[in-house]
Amino acid sequence: MRKVAIVGVGHSKFGERQDVNVRELAFESVKTALEEAGLTPRDIPYVSVGSIGVWYEEPLPAVAIAEYCGLTGSSLIRVEAACATGSAAVYSAYTAVASGYFDTALVIGVEKMREVDTFTAVELMGRAGSYLWEFENFGLTFPGYYALYATAYMNRFGASEEDLALVAVKNHRYGAMNPLAHIQREITVEDVLSSYVVAWPLKLYDCCPITDGSAAVVLASEEKVKELKVDTPVWIAGIGSSSGTGTLSYRSDFIGLDAAVKASRIAYKIAGVEPRDIDVAEVHDCFTIAELMAYEDLGFCGRGEGFKMIREGQTEVGGKIPVNIDGGLKAKGHPIGATGVSMMVELTKQLREEVKPSSRQAPMKNYVALAHNVGGTGHYCYVTILRR
Amino acid sequence: MRKVAIVGVGHSKFGERQDVNVRELAFESVKTALEEAGLTPRDIPYVSVGSIGVWYEEPLPAVAIAEYCGLTGSSLIRVEAACATGSAAVYSAYTAVASGYFDTALVIGVEKMREVDTFTAVELMGRAGSYLWEFENFGLTFPGYYALYATAYMNRFGASEEDLALVAVKNHRYGAMNPLAHIQREITVEDVLSSYVVAWPLKLYDCCPITDGSAAVVLASEEKVKELKVDTPVWIAGIGSSSGTGTLSYRSDFIGLDAAVKASRIAYKIAGVEPRDIDVAEVHDCFTIAELMAYEDLGFCGRGEGFKMIREGQTEVGGKIPVNIDGGLKAKGHPIGATGVSMMVELTKQLREEVKPSSRQAPMKNYVALAHNVGGTGHYCYVTILRR
Repeated sequence: MRKVAIVGVGHSKFGERQDVNVRELAFESVKTALEEAGLTPRDIPYVSVGSIGVWYEEPLPAVAIAEYCGLTGSSLIRVEAACATGSAAVYSAYTAVASGYFDTALVIGVEKMREVDTFTAVELMGRAGSYLWEFENFGLTFPGYYALYATAYMNRFGASEEDLALVAVKNHRYGAMNPLAHIQREITVEDVLSSYVVAWPLKLYDCCPITDGSAAVVLASEEKVKELKVDTPVWIAGIGSSSGTGTLSYRSDFIGLDAAVKASRIAYKIAGVEPRDIDVAEVHDCFTIAELMAYEDLGFCGRGEGFKMIREGQTEVGGKIPVNIDGGLKAKGHPIGATGVSMMVELTKQLREEVKPSSRQAPMKNYVALAHNVGGTGHYCYVTILRR
Repeated sequence: MRKVAIVGVGHSKFGERQDVNVRELAFESVKTALEEAGLTPRDIPYVSVGSIGVWYEEPLPAVAIAEYCGLTGSSLIRVEAACATGSAAVYSAYTAVASGYFDTALVIGVEKMREVDTFTAVELMGRAGSYLWEFENFGLTFPGYYALYATAYMNRFGASEEDLALVAVKNHRYGAMNPLAHIQREITVEDVLSSYVVAWPLKLYDCCPITDGSAAVVLASEEKVKELKVDTPVWIAGIGSSSGTGTLSYRSDFIGLDAAVKASRIAYKIAGVEPRDIDVAEVHDCFTIAELMAYEDLGFCGRGEGFKMIREGQTEVGGKIPVNIDGGLKAKGHPIGATGVSMMVELTKQLREEVKPSSRQAPMKNYVALAHNVGGTGHYCYVTILRR
C-alpha cells in the first residue's frame, strides 16, 4: 500500500455565512488548499465531497461545487456518514490514492446548515439514526440522545454538570484564539450552568452551534510528494472506522461509544502508535459529554476517568494530551460535512508547528496527531492518525 | 495494486415494492450475495451503500440498513453520484480492497423511489444538476435535459423518432425474459410512437420507469478469492470515472456526453482492452437517446452511427455487442442507487454464462464486459470493465 500525505489545506471562516452560496463557501477552502500544494484544479484527478446536503433545494451539491471550483472532468464522488461525513470523504480519497489509482486527490467538506431554522436543522440531524422509530415515537433528537449518555455517565461515575461545563469553558477559551471559529468568546462555568436546559443535563452551552463552513485537503502519494517538493508533508499513518446500531435500544451501555473504541484500536494498530504517543487530538465534542467519553473511548484515560482529565486540565496545552485546542465543534462550530476535514486542517497545522498564537500550538514530542469524528450518536466513527 | 474480484452477487425483484421497507429491500440482495460468496455478515469489514435517499423521512439510510443486515461494526460509508451512485459505491469499495486496507467489501445499492408520487420523483431527480438556475428559471427536468440531446442528435445525424423507439422495443423484449425486471412486457415501435409526449421527441416509452429495488455485490482481494475457493471469480479489470458541468449551457455540444467518453477511455486503458473486445455491455438508457449516445461515447461505433447500430440489430444477442439484454433501465427499471450495482450483477452472471433463458445469454469470446453508468445528464460517468 502506498504512503499518502496531506500536502495542502484550506479552511473557511466558520459561522453564519449568508454572504456566500455553497459553491463559493467550498471555493474559499479549495483555493488555499490547492495553492499550498502548488497545484491547479486541472491537476486534480479525484475529488471527494463530504456533505450531508439535506438543507436546501440542491441536496446533491458535488457537481455544482466541482464546476464552480474548475474541477469538472475529475472523478467525482459525494460521501456521507452522518456527522463523520468529512472523515469518510478523507477515507475515500485516501484509499483512492493508496490503491495506486490516483496520485493526487482533493477532499472538500462543506455544509450550509443555516439555510434552515434551528428547529428544522435539529430535526434533520436526527435522521441518520432510527428516525421513524425513535423520533416519531419517542421524540428523540440529538441533544436527547446525548442526554441519555450524559445521565448514564454521571450516574455511573459521579461526574457533575460542572465537569461537563469545564469542557465548554476549555473549548471556548481556545475558540476565542481561533479567527476561523464560529464563536470567539470565552465563557465561564456559571455561564454554562445558567444557560437554558436543552435536554437535561445538557444546557445550551453544552451543545455545539449550527454552523456554515468548509474545509479542504489535498492528498498526494509518496512519489508525488517528492515531485511537488512539499516542505512538510503530513502523512496519514492510519485510519480506523466502525459503525454502531441505528437503534439506541440495541446498545449495550450508554457510557461510551463502541464504534469509537473499535475505530481507534484499528487506527492505532495500523499506525503503530499508542494513545500515549498522541501529541494533540481533535475529538468530536458535539456535546460536552461526547468529549469526556471520547477521552475514554480513545484510551487517553481509563473508563470513568474522563471527567478527571478535564478537572485536572490534562487536555489543555501543557497537559497530557491537548484536545480541541482550535475550539472544537463546541466553539469552532460543526458544519457537518466540513467537520472531519477541518480536523485534518487543524492537525496538519499543529504538526507543522505553525499555529498562532503560540498559546494554541501543542508542543510536539512524537509528531503524532489524532482526529476522532463521530456520526450520529456513535452510529459511525472514523479515527484518523496523522504523523509528520 | 491488488487485483479485486466480484465473488458474490444478489438482486431483488425490481418494481413497485410496497411490500418491504428499504432495509428489507436491501437485505433481499445482501442475503444472496453473501451466500454466493460463502460469507456471513460478520466476515465483512467494509460496507459501501449507494443510495440517493431523498425520498422519505430517513434520507441517510446506511446505518439502518447495516443494522438490519447484521453488518453493525463494519466500516460504513454512503456514496452518491446522482444516477451513477451504484457504480460510485462499487468504486469506493474497489479502491478500499485494492489499497490493501480490506480483504473483502460489500456494496449495497438500494432505492425506494416510489415512496413519493411520480411528479415529486421527477422533480427530485433534477436536483443533482444546476437546479436553482435551470429548474427554477427554465423548468428543466430530466426528460427535458435528454430531449435537448435528442433533438440535437436527430438534427445533426438524421436519426428519427423510430430509431429511438427501436431502443425501447429491444430493451422491453429482453426485459420480458428477465423475471427481476420491473416491466416484463414486449412493446412495438407503434406503442412507443403513440405513447404520450413527455418532452418531445421523448415519449412515455422513451423514458425509464420509477422503480424500487436493490442489488449487492461482494468484492474480494486475490488472496481472499483463493482462500474462499471461489469457482468463477469475475475480476474488476478497470474503472474509469469523470464528471461534466452542472450547468448544461456550459456544454460544448449536445450529441454525446464528454464524461462518458473520458471515463471509458480511462477504463479501456487500465483494463488494456478496446471497444471491440467487449462481449456484452450494460449502458445507462434512462432515456432511449441515452443508449444511442452511449454506443458512440463508448466507441462501439463512430459518432453519429449509433442509430444505425440499433437499426441493424447490432446490439442484440447475436449482434456485434449485445447491450442491455437484461432489459436495461428502460424495462428492468432504474432504482437509482441500485442501478450501477445491478449492472455488475447482470454482467457477472453473463460472464459466468449462467443467464437463463439462453436467448438472453451473450456469447462469450473474450470474457470481457462493460458497464456504463451515468449520473444526471453526463454530470457523472463511471465505466467499469469486468473480466472472467
